[in-house]
Amino acid sequence: MKEPVITLLTDFGLADHYVAAMKGVILSNCPQARLVDITHDVTPFAIAEGAYTLAQAWKYFPKGTTHLAVVDPGVGSARRAIVAEVAGHRFVAPDNGLLSMVLETDPRAKVREIGASRYFRHPVSNTFHGRDIFAPVAARLAKGLLPARLGEILSSPIMGSFAKPTQIAENRWRGAVLKVDRFGNVVTNFDWTTFRGMAERPFKLKLGRRTVRGYYPAYADAPVGLMFVIRGSADYVEVSVNKGDAAAIAGVVSGDEIEVALAGSRV
Amino acid sequence: MKEPVITLLTDFGLADHYVAAMKGVILSNCPQARLVDITHDVTPFAIAEGAYTLAQAWKYFPKGTTHLAVVDPGVGSARRAIVAEVAGHRFVAPDNGLLSMVLETDPRAKVREIGASRYFRHPVSNTFHGRDIFAPVAARLAKGLLPARLGEILSSPIMGSFAKPTQIAENRWRGAVLKVDRFGNVVTNFDWTTFRGMAERPFKLKLGRRTVRGYYPAYADAPVGLMFVIRGSADYVEVSVNKGDAAAIAGVVSGDEIEVALAGSRV
Amino acid sequence: MKEPVITLLTDFGLADHYVAAMKGVILSNCPQARLVDITHDVTPFAIAEGAYTLAQAWKYFPKGTTHLAVVDPGVGSARRAIVAEVAGHRFVAPDNGLLSMVLETDPRAKVREIGASRYFRHPVSNTFHGRDIFAPVAARLAKGLLPARLGEILSSPIMGSFAKPTQIAENRWRGAVLKVDRFGNVVTNFDWTTFRGMAERPFKLKLGRRTVRGYYPAYADAPVGLMFVIRGSADYVEVSVNKGDAAAIAGVVSGDEIEVALAGSRV
Repeated sequence: MKEPVITLLTDFGLADHYVAAMKGVILSNCPQARLVDITHDVTPFAIAEGAYTLAQAWKYFPKGTTHLAVVDPGVGSARRAIVAEVAGHRFVAPDNGLLSMVLETDPRAKVREIGASRYFRHPVSNTFHGRDIFAPVAARLAKGLLPARLGEILSSPIMGSFAKPTQIAENRWRGAVLKVDRFGNVVTNFDWTTFRGMAERPFKLKLGRRTVRGYYPAYADAPVGLMFVIRGSADYVEVSVNKGDAAAIAGVVSGDEIEVALAGSRV
Repeated sequence: MKEPVITLLTDFGLADHYVAAMKGVILSNCPQARLVDITHDVTPFAIAEGAYTLAQAWKYFPKGTTHLAVVDPGVGSARRAIVAEVAGHRFVAPDNGLLSMVLETDPRAKVREIGASRYFRHPVSNTFHGRDIFAPVAARLAKGLLPARLGEILSSPIMGSFAKPTQIAENRWRGAVLKVDRFGNVVTNFDWTTFRGMAERPFKLKLGRRTVRGYYPAYADAPVGLMFVIRGSADYVEVSVNKGDAAAIAGVVSGDEIEVALAGSRV
Repeated sequence: MKEPVITLLTDFGLADHYVAAMKGVILSNCPQARLVDITHDVTPFAIAEGAYTLAQAWKYFPKGTTHLAVVDPGVGSARRAIVAEVAGHRFVAPDNGLLSMVLETDPRAKVREIGASRYFRHPVSNTFHGRDIFAPVAARLAKGLLPARLGEILSSPIMGSFAKPTQIAENRWRGAVLKVDRFGNVVTNFDWTTFRGMAERPFKLKLGRRTVRGYYPAYADAPVGLMFVIRGSADYVEVSVNKGDAAAIAGVVSGDEIEVALAGSRV
């Protein structure tokens, strides 16, 4: 790409200087880069939410885009830094599950541990790898550096348990809240393809202090105030309240646990 | 333009992946585009507020800019999509009044219904025309597509009733709140040119649970705590409280109704 | 620079049209500019906070970058507008202390009063110099205009008293809150190099309704709920509460006063 695109996703917020520091480091290493924010408003340390948001956004960008993602509660510890190649895109992130939902989409995805510290900004701090490792590495990739120059293939990158629900008994699953949107709708990690039965058969979904039993095909179909299940636009099961804030009513935030019983099983 | 400018205005917020999806689609269709956010913090579904913010911002951009605006409560219904040419700028938006205040500035503005679906992203969803219709069309316009290729002239685009107050009796008008700014100042749709008499003659302005009777030329001139009228920087009548939050005190939000009686009439 | 970088820092927020108006004016004067936001979420009128955030961010950008900073409670009064040259970067700002912490880093910094009104946008308003003065001047600088063309050297730009604490007695200093971060940590203007003694000797730090006496080298070392002092990532003394919001507990905001007594003196 003549003017390579680099996207950024973090939990740093926009009020501090952190995102600007990363952008400055990128432009110092790759002046022709085009920077596009995915979001910097991921709930702090919410890896599942970051993974979901990234997985929803990256595929709309042109092939050749470099995606820089930093939600990194383990910064400064021994967690690895990785670079991934997925369907013609590159991703740079901590190895903590943040890329799980991207990696799942492509069985031929290639992941490497970033070992080549000569591309880092020195000295490398213990607290801000976004600036010192991920930003300069993303800038070099955008300029044409081959991922193979960064390190060896990593056969088992960390995959978040949030990427899909776990079956815990016959007809019972445990999953998680991926995200609460600005209207209070709760996006779960129950993908609609697997759990479309909730539209047809009796179910119980435990979410915080509430149990949900109803399904409606559209918001407008549900009685005002009722908490119900709907097929979300990202093709996951979502929990909503018509003209209400489902997350606040159930008392849940990003990352909280969910249980579903479907077809006669007991929760 | 060698590197055409595309601005974006939506009510999507910045925490979700929606704005990034639109930007990805634009860059996939027009890699050389320069993307500039006007705002994504329009109050959800507040067409009047979006119309006002767009009308305040577009004129500062260079001729040839393409403006993409999506505040779209009717997405998925039969509402039309339009492209407008105004003073050398192009606008892409739903036909719901969002362009009202831009169109009013230029009697020679040309509006077309967007019919040519071959420029859309397929399949077109029912819920996200920003990504599937407006973004790819804006990208094509920025690349040089002539608006005439998109569809036929539309003689009566929808003009929001919020664009100016309605006279409801002799010396009485009904208008609306265009926007509440970050300090709680209430921007109304009473333009100063028409209503400058409020600076000189007795008036009553009904706003939520309050009635306002005073005018001051500057914030600092008003007694602390008093609610008063001032000439706003965008040349509309604004309602303010010196060192207070006028919108919260009156209990109003974007879109709420206002009544003004001027020069001896009764509200 | 072929595609010169211009950064923006303001207290305008992102919900209104103000930042977009400035960007439109810049692109109208310098179409090839690359715009990068530092932040627009500086607490309104908080010069110290803006100065601190700018000082933390600018150094990561490439030499030749133009930085446009507007936190301007005195707009419309007689305060001057200035352009500064610091270590190969240019800064455009009101002369109110906003550049204090940048200017302090370079004894060879050159500051000029902006007098050449032919580069302004006319008519110049009384309320929005960001659009009418700072944006067009920054655009011209990015295009190659020499700072010397803008005006004469200013020997004494205003330096904020917040740039460092004042000694008020033997072993006693008065300083200020530079910023409250998104977790409620309080960044003070006590630089760690000068005040590292707080890690070793008894001290009292008065912050709002609280007095702080403890130092811990890491968040995790402090008892949950205790308010303590830590060396912040920007090398200033910070006040934190492990798993709590220090600013809310102490009742302080950006700009509030702090007193420190170190080594046996009394507060």
